[in-house]
Amino acid sequence: MSSLSVPRPAGLDRPFVAPRRHMFGPGPSNVPPRVLEAGSNPVIGHMHPEMFEIMSDIKSGIRYAFQTHNHVTLAVSGSGHAAMECALLNTLEPGDALLVVANGIWGERAADIAERIGAKVHTIAAPPGGCVTNDEINKALSKLRPVLMFVAHGESSTGVLHPLDGIGDLCHKYGCLLLVDAVASMGGAPLYMDKQGIDILYTGSQKVLNSPPGTAPISFSPRACQKVFNRKTKPVSFFLDLTWLANYWGCDDKPTRIYHHTGPVSAFYSLRESLRMLAEEGLESSWERHRMVAEYFHTGLENMGLKLFVKDKNARLPTVTTILAPPGYDWKEITSFIMKTHNLEVSGGLGPSVGLVLRVGLMGCNSSRESVDMVLNALKDALKHCHKSKV
Amino acid sequence: MSSLSVPRPAGLDRPFVAPRRHMFGPGPSNVPPRVLEAGSNPVIGHMHPEMFEIMSDIKSGIRYAFQTHNHVTLAVSGSGHAAMECALLNTLEPGDALLVVANGIWGERAADIAERIGAKVHTIAAPPGGCVTNDEINKALSKLRPVLMFVAHGESSTGVLHPLDGIGDLCHKYGCLLLVDAVASMGGAPLYMDKQGIDILYTGSQKVLNSPPGTAPISFSPRACQKVFNRKTKPVSFFLDLTWLANYWGCDDKPTRIYHHTGPVSAFYSLRESLRMLAEEGLESSWERHRMVAEYFHTGLENMGLKLFVKDKNARLPTVTTILAPPGYDWKEITSFIMKTHNLEVSGGLGPSVGLVLRVGLMGCNSSRESVDMVLNALKDALKHCHKSKV
Repeated sequence: MSSLSVPRPAGLDRPFVAPRRHMFGPGPSNVPPRVLEAGSNPVIGHMHPEMFEIMSDIKSGIRYAFQTHNHVTLAVSGSGHAAMECALLNTLEPGDALLVVANGIWGERAADIAERIGAKVHTIAAPPGGCVTNDEINKALSKLRPVLMFVAHGESSTGVLHPLDGIGDLCHKYGCLLLVDAVASMGGAPLYMDKQGIDILYTGSQKVLNSPPGTAPISFSPRACQKVFNRKTKPVSFFLDLTWLANYWGCDDKPTRIYHHTGPVSAFYSLRESLRMLAEEGLESSWERHRMVAEYFHTGLENMGLKLFVKDKNARLPTVTTILAPPGYDWKEITSFIMKTHNLEVSGGLGPSVGLVLRVGLMGCNSSRESVDMVLNALKDALKHCHKSKV
Repeated sequence: MSSLSVPRPAGLDRPFVAPRRHMFGPGPSNVPPRVLEAGSNPVIGHMHPEMFEIMSDIKSGIRYAFQTHNHVTLAVSGSGHAAMECALLNTLEPGDALLVVANGIWGERAADIAERIGAKVHTIAAPPGGCVTNDEINKALSKLRPVLMFVAHGESSTGVLHPLDGIGDLCHKYGCLLLVDAVASMGGAPLYMDKQGIDILYTGSQKVLNSPPGTAPISFSPRACQKVFNRKTKPVSFFLDLTWLANYWGCDDKPTRIYHHTGPVSAFYSLRESLRMLAEEGLESSWERHRMVAEYFHTGLENMGLKLFVKDKNARLPTVTTILAPPGYDWKEITSFIMKTHNLEVSGGLGPSVGLVLRVGLMGCNSSRESVDMVLNALKDALKHCHKSKV
C-alpha cells in the first residue's frame, strides 16, 4: 500500500508546448532559435574547465557591450532585479546615504531595497516622462553627500532614456559612486561605462540580448570595488556577496575558485550566444538600428494620431515606447484584442504609468521595420474594433 | 570612426558545443533530452496566462514531490542556495535564535547566512559522517529555545542521510520551526513534509530532478507562514521576499498578481518537465530505485576493497556516496584520470570532507545499475593506472 498522502497531480499528465507569439512588450523579448539551441546543449558542471571558458567569454562579451575594462565584470545568476540587489546590497551599509533619481518604477525599487538595508534614502523626482537635469543632480549631491547615486538609463515604465553625460564626473566630485540600471537600454542606445564614469552598471538577459530571463550582466569599477571590498559589515546576502561572486567568476587574484553556488549552466550557454550575436552585429550598428527603427515607429504612431508619453524626442528610449492610452478606449481591451487577434504582446503601464500608457518593446532581433509595421497594423485594427466611448 | 574603446572580443568568434559527459558528481546531474527540449520552447511572458498554468503545474508537482498540502509552495528563481537564503531571510529577524544541526557544509552555510541577518546562531555538531540523535536535539531545543532549527536531510558533502522522524514534533513542542534542506535527497529518499512536521523544505532542480540548475522548489507550512507574514521588519531581500513571491506564484488570497521580478521562463519549462517525469515514475518507485542502486553500488565498492565514509548503513545518502580516498593515492589524480579516460565526473570532497573522500552522485536518470558498473569500472581502472605511493 502506498505511504503517500498527496497523489500524482493530474495537471502533469500532459506535455506542454509553448505558443509562438510576437513578444513586443517590455520584455522578455523573442529568443532567436540559435540562442534557444545554445541553451539546450548538454549540461556540464558549473566548475568544469569548459564552463570557466564560457564564463570567460561571457565576461569579454559584457565588457564589450558595456564598453568597460573593469576586471570585476560578471553575470548574476538571476534576473535584472537580482543584479539591482547585488549592486545595492554590496555597496550600501546601514546608515549610508543613497540618492535616487526617481523617474519611474526602478528608482522606487532601488529606494525600497536600500531602506531594507538600513540606508538613508533621498530622492530627486523627475516629472512624469521626463528627466532630472545635471544641475539638479549637482545641487542634491552637494547638499546630501550620498555614497551612491542610482539612475535608470532606460526607464521601461515611462519610456524615458535618461542622459548620462557628465553625471559620473559630478558624482566623483562629491566622492559618490554612480550606479546605472541599463536593463532596458543596454545594446539599444549608446552607453559607455568607462567614458561616462559609471561605477556600477547592470542589465538583464531578456531585453536587447534576446536571451531567456535568468541572468544579469553586471560590472564594478575599481572605485566601486574599493568601497565594496572594504566594508565594515558583510552584505546580508551570501548568494549575492560580490567577494564570493568575483571569485566564482575568476575576477579576483586568488589562484583557485571556491564553490559558491551552482550557476545556471544552460542560461549561461544562452547568454554567451546572445553576446556573440551582439558582437557579430557590432555594438554601434545595434544602437543605430534601434534608433532608426524607433524613429520609424514613432513617426508611424504620430501619423495614426497617437501621442507619445515622452515629449522630448531625445529622451525617448529606443527600445521601449510609451504611447498615451488612446482617449475613450479601455487600454486593457486594446492589449487583449491585439494578443488575441494578432498573437502579439503589447503591454499596459507599470508603476507610475499604470492606466496612462501602452508600452511596446522592440528589442534586439525584434527591432525591425517589419515588427513596427506589425504593431502599427495591430494598433489600427484595435482602434477600429475595440469599444470607444463618446468622449 | 568608431566611438568604441573596447573592441569585439575574439573569444566570441566561435560557437560553443558542450561536451557530453557522465555527470556522476554531486550535481548538476545529466539532463535528459526531453527536459532540455522542454526548456528550448519559445519564451513567453513571465505573466502570460499560459505561464501561470505552467507555474500551477509546477506547484502541484512540488506538492507531490514534497508530500505536502501547503498552499505556499513555489519555485525560487535561483539555485538551491537561493532557496536556503529565501528560507532564512524570510523567517529570521535580527536577534532571533537559530539552531543548526551541523553535519557538513550546508549547516555551516546556514549559520553564515543567519549571522549576516543578525540572528543568534547555536550549533550541534554531528561527528564526521554521522548524525545527531533526537535526544541531543531535544536537549538543545529545551535549553536554547530557538525560533528555527536547520538540518540537511541529504548532506552531499559528507554523504549522510539524516533521519527526520520525530524531529518535527520535538521542534513544535518547543515552539520552534523545522527547516530542512533536501537539495541532494528529494526524490531519492523517503521524505514526507506534512507527516514529518517539516515547516520549510527546499530542494534544487539539478539533482534528482535532472533539470538544469537555476530553480529551487520550496514550501512553507501554515505554521511557518504565521511567523513569516507577521514579521516586525521587512526581510532585507526584495528579490526573495516571500510576501512578493507568494503573490507572484498565486499562493496568497489576492485577486491579482503584481509584477515582482521576471522569472526564468525557460528554466520553469524544464522544471515542469522534470516534475512530470518524477510523477510518471511515481515517487515511491523513484525512492526504491535509488535505494536499490545505492545498495548495489556500495556492495560493489566494498568488494573492490574501498571503504565508505558513512559507517552506519541507514545513514547513507542513496544519491551521493562518499568513498574514503584510497590510501596511497592522490584523490585529484583519480578524479582527473576518470574524467579524461572515461569522460565521467566523480568529485572530491567539499567543506569538511575535502581531501578525505571521493564523491559519486547517481541521481534521477543517472541512478541505474549501468551507471554503477561504469563508475566501478572507471575506479578500478584509476586504481590500476594512477600513481600509488608505498604506504
